This record gives sequence, structure tokens and C-alpha cells, in this order.
Amino acid sequence: MSTESKATLEKLVALCKRRGFVYQSAEIYGGLNGVYDFGYLGTLVKQNLRAVWLTAMNSCKGDMLQLEGSLLGSRAVWEASGHIQNFHDPMVDCLQCKHRYRADDIDLNKPCPHCGNKNWTEIREFNMMFKTYVGATAEQGSEAYLRPETAQAIFINFKNVISTNRVKIPFGIAQIGKAFRNEITPKQFLFRMREFEQMEMEWFCKGETAEKDFEYWCEQRHNFYAILGLTMSRIRMRPHAKDELAHYSKACTDVEYQFPFGWKELEGIAYRGDFDLSQHTKFSGKDLAVFDEETKTSYMPHVVECSVGADRLFLTLLFDSYDEDVVEGETRIVLRFNPAVAPIKAAFLPLTKKQSDATEKIYTAIKQTGLVVDFDESGSIGKRYRRQDEIGTPLCFTYDFESETDNAVTVRNRDTTKQERISIDKVESYLQDFFTKK
Amino acid sequence: MSTESKATLEKLVALCKRRGFVYQSAEIYGGLNGVYDFGYLGTLVKQNLRAVWLTAMNSCKGDMLQLEGSLLGSRAVWEASGHIQNFHDPMVDCLQCKHRYRADDIDLNKPCPHCGNKNWTEIREFNMMFKTYVGATAEQGSEAYLRPETAQAIFINFKNVISTNRVKIPFGIAQIGKAFRNEITPKQFLFRMREFEQMEMEWFCKGETAEKDFEYWCEQRHNFYAILGLTMSRIRMRPHAKDELAHYSKACTDVEYQFPFGWKELEGIAYRGDFDLSQHTKFSGKDLAVFDEETKTSYMPHVVECSVGADRLFLTLLFDSYDEDVVEGETRIVLRFNPAVAPIKAAFLPLTKKQSDATEKIYTAIKQTGLVVDFDESGSIGKRYRRQDEIGTPLCFTYDFESETDNAVTVRNRDTTKQERISIDKVESYLQDFFTKK
Repeated sequence: MSTESKATLEKLVALCKRRGFVYQSAEIYGGLNGVYDFGYLGTLVKQNLRAVWLTAMNSCKGDMLQLEGSLLGSRAVWEASGHIQNFHDPMVDCLQCKHRYRADDIDLNKPCPHCGNKNWTEIREFNMMFKTYVGATAEQGSEAYLRPETAQAIFINFKNVISTNRVKIPFGIAQIGKAFRNEITPKQFLFRMREFEQMEMEWFCKGETAEKDFEYWCEQRHNFYAILGLTMSRIRMRPHAKDELAHYSKACTDVEYQFPFGWKELEGIAYRGDFDLSQHTKFSGKDLAVFDEETKTSYMPHVVECSVGADRLFLTLLFDSYDEDVVEGETRIVLRFNPAVAPIKAAFLPLTKKQSDATEKIYTAIKQTGLVVDFDESGSIGKRYRRQDEIGTPLCFTYDFESETDNAVTVRNRDTTKQERISIDKVESYLQDFFTKK
Repeated sequence: MSTESKATLEKLVALCKRRGFVYQSAEIYGGLNGVYDFGYLGTLVKQNLRAVWLTAMNSCKGDMLQLEGSLLGSRAVWEASGHIQNFHDPMVDCLQCKHRYRADDIDLNKPCPHCGNKNWTEIREFNMMFKTYVGATAEQGSEAYLRPETAQAIFINFKNVISTNRVKIPFGIAQIGKAFRNEITPKQFLFRMREFEQMEMEWFCKGETAEKDFEYWCEQRHNFYAILGLTMSRIRMRPHAKDELAHYSKACTDVEYQFPFGWKELEGIAYRGDFDLSQHTKFSGKDLAVFDEETKTSYMPHVVECSVGADRLFLTLLFDSYDEDVVEGETRIVLRFNPAVAPIKAAFLPLTKKQSDATEKIYTAIKQTGLVVDFDESGSIGKRYRRQDEIGTPLCFTYDFESETDNAVTVRNRDTTKQERISIDKVESYLQDFFTKK
């Protein structure tokens, strides 16, 4: 990885669109602001990110369960969580041009950045949850909300999970899924979206061990970014100051990444005390405390939460992997993805169309092993290498004029651009070694 | 598989709840009707189902891409697709007790099944899409809908996909994701839900080959259920009669499964002509036709769609796998899952707590290979076998008094209940063989 990023948001947006990683949602209808669709390569990268995250979760100390909660939540859930009352952003309108802003995004002593007039409405509170109605009537009882975070699904199922799985405190519940926030001004591409994906884990432990567990998870999560191959000098752990903490929160550390637009939160690690389970106990009337066989008393477990946005992580990965260098006198764009998250693991290229059939045979055999691979026969070989570099394909195998006689192909490494000759019989084991080593 | 199902919906609901496969969503708040959360085992089974479906898609003829479209869709999308105008269910209320029904579910010449009076409202059309508002205003321009099917995300991105990936017609785009339908009367547990998950594939081809491709996909999809291990005598292909087809549809075949409550649709395979791309061309003003290099003309691709509900498939799998038999004089419940979809692949059981440490060592080593495995030390060994049978764990490894001296464990097969002794060094390769063979 280079120490200074050559990526800009504009370059990444263009690359994502050009190579089909990400499209603006409903683009042919003018787009839906703050909402995106993931194309083929984007979908593959996200699948890989989910897998790496889950593996990290599963290799932690103690038991790690999973859950997939619904995206629709009844009003009662969000009353207990505090989202109905408190999940607001301050909103302000320009009375002249009707442009709307998040009040904390702009300076109200200055004129409207859009029309240049200075004529603001009062600041109002805007609830960021998407509301809908479940069932055939629009009464308050049938109000439902798209979840603004995945975490609550874990808390409200805590008793269910602990009574139907043979687990003991401490243990974790991990969840990957969509969440929705009606941002007043979504921005910076995948950085702040209205529909996004979270990877959250709630760790339930005793109050006595919670601070130690919080430290453990800070360490684990820091390691995760190293495993993912991010440039660690661009990662920092920022503990919240006391006055930044929610009233119930005992400690919170953000994992921040140095984007071109500044250090920004990538993940939040929070020691939430027993706030969540206590709230749901209070509001639901169901006791979520657990019984301790040793002390013969009931207690409310404490929670350490690790929460990362999958789309923001995806964007971070692009920023971090993006590079431009000069190969044989030509500038190339290269995504230096960790092989584990690269969407296409290898490309198979016939030097000319005469070698297409023979190359395709190898390609098909490797594809059947389950590896996601590509076959490309159009354009010069240099152009095809660049095409693969740009989407981060770690290896290219070229079948050339000599392959038929020496039963070998050339394998080219994305990062070094070095080439070596290997026997066709060894392609599968070469790939296996390459992807388990990394 | 037994030929006659011993499963009933009641037994499955109870099993799902008891073992943590599925919980009613927001249960501690009285539940959200027609919406469910997947617990640990349910999440694992769904992950496996997705993987088996994707593998089947990727091993088809030709190129198969993927997409993950947003769940929020702007009004324009659903106008073009016809959902705003036509996605209705007929609804009727009892004027006496206010109970609400889907009009085609009940006989309006008879009294209300709930209160016994016969005093019906007129039948009204009820649109089944969930509506919400995007942005901070509730104007028509900001109306958005939760997608009632995943397919449209593929159609509206068709041009994006084909111009950013090096694919040629015919090819497919596969998508797994949530969809939402505001059912008037959700029923039969996971069979008809308000929030559910679809696995859909749209195959784009030339009109000339479409009928052959339709046949191809009917065959492929029939095979899929055999690969999944369903009882094939309970699967049938039901071609739609002419008067069942939508006006644009040229052919449609349902894959049906024989549930205890009758033959019901599990998957729909539809030859949709060029309706979808033509509609979006018309409504968006963007030409979605493709250019044929051979004939030098533009044409609108035709579409063959394969659409299965992941949750309904999950329920089907439970119905099909559920069995009760008698082992050593005791009735047991056993889920005869295909090993590929079993949530837990193997359990490691110390005969007594004295063998716990040694057993846990093997368990930890196997867990590190990435296989989802369980460790259980509480209760009699027979009880623990039954616990695993009930969740469909294919293999149990028991470490006993002799294991320390002969360095071997007993492996028990879920289906046959036969046991054999194998060397501890061979556990990993035994598992590898077992799960690749199946």
C-alpha cells in the first residue's frame, strides 16, 4: 500500500460506475437520493467482506451466535429503544429557495449556500426513521418503522436466544443486515446513505468483566482491519470524551479511518452498560435478567457493542486499495485488494483468439472448484491486464503460443506485475496456495 | 426420506421456537404479524440455502452475474412495473366485529367466521406495497415503496449491467434479497409473510431461443430440488393454463410441493417475453434494447425468470426433513437435512465431564477449519444425541473412557444411528470426505 492515497471520491465514484461495482438506485428514473444498488463486482466484494467479518467474529473467545432480525419493527420496539423520542436531526429550511439543510451542517449566521439569501426557518427536529403501516389500516397501532439499526433485534430476542441455545454468559450475537435512516442530506457516496448495511455484534457479559471485555473487543476490532489489509497508519482508535458519551454509555471508542475528507468513524465500539436490556425489560414487562447458578441471584447482563457499516467499509476498502502507478511507460489504475476480498480471484486470458478454446477449458475447470474467475479474450493482452488491475484481480493466467507444447501458462501478479511460468496441471494448486497463504 | 410426512405446521412452529430456528418478530411486544426473526440455527440454514442456490445458478450454462438492489424504490419504478395500478388484493370487512379478510379467502354468502354475523362491506382493492417517504417532506415526489419483489431492481439496472460487464446475451442476473408485501392475512407461519426473502434470477435471451431456454430452466430448477435432497415424489411441475397467464407472459410453470395443506407453489418459472424491458423503456425514456453485432439491428431481449421464496423454501425443507422414529425404544424427532444445509455439521460430546477437556480440544481444532460445529457436555449421551437429531446434525463424535488409550472416538450417523470407531487423527479428513461426498 502506498502511504499517501491517490484516491479521490470523484475517482472512486467514476470507477464504481464504470466497472459496475455500484450504481445509483433507480438511475434510469433520475435516481433515489442516498440509495444505491450493488452491481456484480460490488456484490462479490460485499459477500467477501461479510465472510471476513463473520470469520473474525467466530474466531473470538467464547461462543458467537448469529441472528437475522426483521427490518420492519413495531412502534413499541422503537419507543423502548428511545428512537421515537430521540432519533432526530436538527433541520432548517431556506425560506427563499426552500433548500433544506441539516442545521449542524451549515452556519446559520451566513447566507444560504444555494441561493445566497439569509432567511432561515426555525430549527426543527426531524425524526430519521422511515415510517409505514402494517396491515390494511393506517392507525397508530399498525405503525411500523424500518429499523435504523440492527442492534435492537438482538436485544429484544435476547431471552429467546439464551433459552433456546445452550450458551452461557459471556457470549455474543452477530448480525448482518440492512438498516435505514432518512438522512436530511445524504452525502459522500456510500459514506452516508439512507439505506445501508450493518455488521453488528452484541457481547453479553457480567458487569464485573465488562471493562476488560470492552478492552478485548477494542483490540480484536483493531486487528480486524489489519487482517483486512488496510493501511494501519490510516487507522486510529479514538476513545470518546466523557461529554460525548450517551448518558447510559460507560465507554466508547471509534475506529476511525483517514479519508481524504478527514478522519471519520468506521466502526463504533461501545460499552453500553445494562441500558438496552433494562429498557426492554421496563417497556415490555418481560424480565430479561439471567440467573447466575453460582451466586443464585438474577442480574442484568452488560453489553459491549461492535458496529460497522458494511457499505462504509466497502468505500474505505476502495479508498485504501486504490493506486495509480506506471507499468511499462503507461499509467494504470490498480485496486490493491487483499486477495480475500477481491471480487474476481483470477482471470484466464488467451494470448490471441486462437488459444481461446484451450484457455476456456482451464477457466471452466477452475470455475467448477467454486472460485470466482473471469475469462477475457478481447483486446490486447496489456489492455486486459489493466482491465483486471482496475478491479483488483490478484492473478492473471495467460495461455500463449507455447502453452500447447510446454503445457504451461504464464501467471502474472497484480501487485508486482512479475510473471512466472507454471505447468497447467499446477494451476489449481497454485491458486489454492495463493489464497490460503494470504 | 419417508414417503408420508409426519410433520404438521404446529409441530414445526413448536420445533422452530423450541430450538431457536425462528422467533415471532418483536415477540416480547406482542409480535408483529407476518414478520419473523431467524435465530442462530435458522440463520445458518438460510445461509446454506443461499449458498446452494447460488452454486446451482453459477453452474448453469453461460454467464451468471449477481446484483444487490436497494429495498427502497421510487414511485416511478413501481408505476412502470404496474405495481401501483395492479398489485392489489380484494379486501372485505365484517361491519359487526370489524374483522378484516381477503375477499377470495372466504365465502361472502356465509356469516363472518369470527363473530357469526353476516354483514359485509363492499369488496375494496387494497394495494399490498408498503409506502413511506424519503427526505424530510411528505409530498408525492418523495413517495417510496418497499419493493414487493426483487426482480425490478434487475430490470432497471439491465443497461448498467450489460454496459459495465463483458457479457453477451444470453446471460443471467441472480439476486438474493428482501421483499415486502402488506398481506391482509399473513398465514401458515413462513408460508405467507409480510417481510420475506426472494432468490430470483432473470435470464436475458433472444426471442428466438426463449422457449428453449424456458425449457432448460424448468429442467434446471427441477434438478435443484433433487440436489437439495427433497422427496421428489412431493415435487411436481405445473404448467399454467392459458387463462392463468398474465397478458404479457408466454408460459409459466410452477414448481409445487405437496404440503400437508395441499400442493402449493414453491417457485415460479416464467417466460415473460420482452414485457419488463419494454415497460421500463417506455416509462423511463431510456432505450433498453441491445445491438446485435451479427444482424446489425437492435432488439429487446426476452426474459425467463426463476423466482423462489427463501423462507418458503426453508419451511419446505423443514416439512420434508422432519421425521419421527423409534431408536432403542424411544421416539425421537429427527430432521433428515441434506448435510449441505444442516446448520450444525457435527457435534463433539464427552461421554462424561471427565472427558470434556480432551473433547473440547478436538472440537476447537475442527471449528478452526471453518466448519460450524457444536460442543455439548450436559445430560446423558442419549439425550445429547436426540438434541442433535432434532436440529439435523449429521454426525456426532463421542469421546469416551477408551479414547485416551486407543486415541479414537465413536462417530454416530444421524440417519442410520450406526456408530463406528475412528482415529482422532482422522476426524478432520472423515468430515471432509463426508461433506464433499454428499
